[in-house]
Amino acid sequence: MVLMEERVRRDGVVKEGGILKVDSFLNHQVDPVLYRAMGEEFHRLFAGEGVNKILTVEASGIGIACVTAQVFDCPALFAKKSRTKNLDGEVFTAQVESFTHGGSYTIMVSKKFLGPGDRVLILDDFLAKGNALAGLVSIVEQSGASLAGCGIAIEKGFQEGGRRLRDRGVRVESLAVIERMDNGEIVFRGE
Amino acid sequence: MVLMEERVRRDGVVKEGGILKVDSFLNHQVDPVLYRAMGEEFHRLFAGEGVNKILTVEASGIGIACVTAQVFDCPALFAKKSRTKNLDGEVFTAQVESFTHGGSYTIMVSKKFLGPGDRVLILDDFLAKGNALAGLVSIVEQSGASLAGCGIAIEKGFQEGGRRLRDRGVRVESLAVIERMDNGEIVFRGE
Repeated sequence: MVLMEERVRRDGVVKEGGILKVDSFLNHQVDPVLYRAMGEEFHRLFAGEGVNKILTVEASGIGIACVTAQVFDCPALFAKKSRTKNLDGEVFTAQVESFTHGGSYTIMVSKKFLGPGDRVLILDDFLAKGNALAGLVSIVEQSGASLAGCGIAIEKGFQEGGRRLRDRGVRVESLAVIERMDNGEIVFRGE
Repeated sequence: MVLMEERVRRDGVVKEGGILKVDSFLNHQVDPVLYRAMGEEFHRLFAGEGVNKILTVEASGIGIACVTAQVFDCPALFAKKSRTKNLDGEVFTAQVESFTHGGSYTIMVSKKFLGPGDRVLILDDFLAKGNALAGLVSIVEQSGASLAGCGIAIEKGFQEGGRRLRDRGVRVESLAVIERMDNGEIVFRGE
């Protein structure tokens, strides 16, 4: 998606340790026009797939999921990262190792909201090692729902998450795939 | 907002300890039609206020903020709950005591994205004790931005948060205000 690549190149900041900061438009401050365009692009990519539920994990994925759900006109569902008073009852869970925060955490989705009748599109802002996405895929599998695929805003193509998921047969559509980020310069796949 | 009251009455579940579960449409699974209607109602309520930025705190507020930002056609900004590798630099912070999770936590917003030129609408899914909202109001004040007010999906009118904020002169617009929840029955303010 040219719009996303242009935006990452213009406003993304490369930091040491393979960190790409996109907090001015994607995951701290959010550009409403870009978000709408992302939703429309995911809808175009997964048209005809019969998607009836969008799944993400808190926190940064929630906005993308909710705006894209407007375009699909279907519910969004966000996996929670900790059991709170607001999430009792039976849940599907998956264990996720975190690159950004360090350590690992449990994500969970209430069994009430995902089941064999669902056709699921998983969305997230970033795909790097792919641990969060793999957890969401596991939850879809546990539920008996079918997976249309994963839609990602920015994939770090030099990390293994995208390849691992595609090797498993999961359809992954990333709006921008970064091939490398050397000396602060960003090169996208296909350039 | 009749739509929100009807939805809370139909699909909300009252639990012991003053807990209202609205996870089927508001803060776990999200109804896209309701979210759009909420955004339009906040836009109607704060029309003419010159709002140019929407502020919330992760996680449940993000979807409401991002969908409402579509209607306002302005950026949304979500305060983070922990310092991660993705949020360096100078930040405004506030300390928030948590009712849902227990304990307290720090919320923070990058100084790059909030300042004297901004007219801010704060949004969140719930208002009970009002600690999270008070933290967001403090961040707006620290930044020198002006506050148009707070828009809330569901206010627990029997807790003190709404009164405290209004007593400070903050405009608070809640789409549904619950006066009491006795024996599982929900009574809204004005009924």
